[in-house]
Amino acid sequence: MTRCLNYNAGPATLPLEVLQEAQADLVDFKGSGMSIMEHSHRGKEYDAVHSEAIANFKKLLNLGDNYEVLFVAGGASMQFAMVPMNLLGPGQTADYIHSGAWAGKAVAEAKLIGSVNVAANTGKDIPTHMPALADLRLTPGAAYVHLTSNETIAGSQWKTFPSTDAPLVADMSSDILSRPFDSSRFALIYAGAQKNLGPSGLALVAIRKDLAERAPEKLPSMLKYKTYVNEKSLYNTPPCFGIYIMMLVSRWILKQGAEKLYSRNVEKAAKIYSAIDAGFYKGTAVKEYRSDMNITFRLPTEALEEQFVKEAAKLGMKGLKGHRSVGGIRASVYNAFPMEGVDALVSFMRDFAKKNG
Amino acid sequence: MTRCLNYNAGPATLPLEVLQEAQADLVDFKGSGMSIMEHSHRGKEYDAVHSEAIANFKKLLNLGDNYEVLFVAGGASMQFAMVPMNLLGPGQTADYIHSGAWAGKAVAEAKLIGSVNVAANTGKDIPTHMPALADLRLTPGAAYVHLTSNETIAGSQWKTFPSTDAPLVADMSSDILSRPFDSSRFALIYAGAQKNLGPSGLALVAIRKDLAERAPEKLPSMLKYKTYVNEKSLYNTPPCFGIYIMMLVSRWILKQGAEKLYSRNVEKAAKIYSAIDAGFYKGTAVKEYRSDMNITFRLPTEALEEQFVKEAAKLGMKGLKGHRSVGGIRASVYNAFPMEGVDALVSFMRDFAKKNG
Repeated sequence: MTRCLNYNAGPATLPLEVLQEAQADLVDFKGSGMSIMEHSHRGKEYDAVHSEAIANFKKLLNLGDNYEVLFVAGGASMQFAMVPMNLLGPGQTADYIHSGAWAGKAVAEAKLIGSVNVAANTGKDIPTHMPALADLRLTPGAAYVHLTSNETIAGSQWKTFPSTDAPLVADMSSDILSRPFDSSRFALIYAGAQKNLGPSGLALVAIRKDLAERAPEKLPSMLKYKTYVNEKSLYNTPPCFGIYIMMLVSRWILKQGAEKLYSRNVEKAAKIYSAIDAGFYKGTAVKEYRSDMNITFRLPTEALEEQFVKEAAKLGMKGLKGHRSVGGIRASVYNAFPMEGVDALVSFMRDFAKKNG
Repeated sequence: MTRCLNYNAGPATLPLEVLQEAQADLVDFKGSGMSIMEHSHRGKEYDAVHSEAIANFKKLLNLGDNYEVLFVAGGASMQFAMVPMNLLGPGQTADYIHSGAWAGKAVAEAKLIGSVNVAANTGKDIPTHMPALADLRLTPGAAYVHLTSNETIAGSQWKTFPSTDAPLVADMSSDILSRPFDSSRFALIYAGAQKNLGPSGLALVAIRKDLAERAPEKLPSMLKYKTYVNEKSLYNTPPCFGIYIMMLVSRWILKQGAEKLYSRNVEKAAKIYSAIDAGFYKGTAVKEYRSDMNITFRLPTEALEEQFVKEAAKLGMKGLKGHRSVGGIRASVYNAFPMEGVDALVSFMRDFAKKNG
């Protein structure tokens, strides 16, 4: 087989060795005579997978004992609802920092539940960027402050997180475990799995346990973080296969070393941005907020952008078309995206600029 | 490899040929150069999977054009919340038929949302059974009537569904597509995938479209059936891999013929019940409500039950321990459970009875 270079924004490239191990074990999990998909979620085989996934992510996120790692079905979009349903009580206000399409969706869902203050809004700005810390208009006594650490569509990323008095909640779907950060400054982190963690259909949630106590009594069990904390995400049958793949991905990160992975991410992004800055191309994001995960740029004309995507696809580089809301090109280079793919793209970009510049 | 006989109640046995196809394609889906887990949910490869899954289930459930098939993350437990959140308005009452552990969970979640009338309650009865139709105390003008078509733990099953004026809603998690039934009598059917349909972590929902219009405006997008109807379950990134396996299972059912599968299910259950009725064993469910999917029975003593489970496991028969709430033995023999497994169990039951009777 020829493996594509997959620049998709999510679902995205998974580590090849994770896929190969999952494939080898798919019908007969570790000689148990059944697939991991067929094992009881209460049995010892699945329990080992589940417990290791929790332990590995706790370690990778450097979480204290006052945090719990949860696996919740439904992805980040479900978290847009669960966060305010659990944390935004009547008479309270939550601060949301609007920085692009994904933050905007979080705002819209929170407004269905309670009172929302949009503390800053760079959502429609092009070039894309995150708000300056000085521009945040935070509410004294807010229930929490919500931000989106990386905007997948805009290609912008927080480089320095704000300090907040209220509990800080972050959607880290598109850059979790891609760089070092101080998790103790966050009260709740969530991330849809399908970018840096595994397949689609579930989210990882890291929550400071005291926050889980806030949920209203009348909130259904499956929407209450407390249920997941109390039952170690085994209140009902969880998305076992997705958690299994996430466990394999967590092992893969630990094996190569998180720090090494993080510096490789910086190197990958720097190579592509350097090709952009060499001329002909133009970055979509303001330089100081450029994302290391989703690299967005424009060509001189839309016709050239279309040609660029088509020619790249012919060379096995798939998923480079940018989102229509910002246009242009987007190269998503998550943790599992290989350096060879970056080099191939950079080389193609140079050739394309030479031919068409 | 030696494949186990897997009597687990769910996650449960999947068709071997489905697992084998998924395995063959896991790293490189149909020569596309990436896994189905890595394909964009907006791309043509996944779209073909998604559309075929919907079309196949519509066909298998014999649904009219006024119905839609949805895929929702989170399993039946999430549906326990979504059904009343969408359909039970203020000032309305929903009728719930309580017939065991799973119906009981549905009742408990609905009570968090609105006014619930328990129209009958056989939930704690042993021998286990469904309520008689004559005993249902339905509310005139109820928002809907909810029943659980098969109680996985109790091993009891509705044989004749009630006729109701209010829209009939059914949790069919443990017997969907195991027998013929008139789907036009139901306004909403849901089923966690991990028994007859696929892996855990998502549910199939078949909804009459007019019901989806009832949702309150303030309901978050991911909890609104209307979102899934309008966006063909692609509002957000769905659980793509789970839907892919469900699609393969739907193909598997179509290939062998649903009617043939249904009659094979009757035959499988009849063989085991006949072994139970031969003496030594005692069925947990009242005969007229015996489930064809989850076959529950007791032995003369708990010590013998423990011995039965242990000896069976040594012969490669796994997952036979009954749920603690009803005790004894449970053999779950879903669609994909092979006839050889039934014959092996029956033969073991005869031997065990002879030796210990």
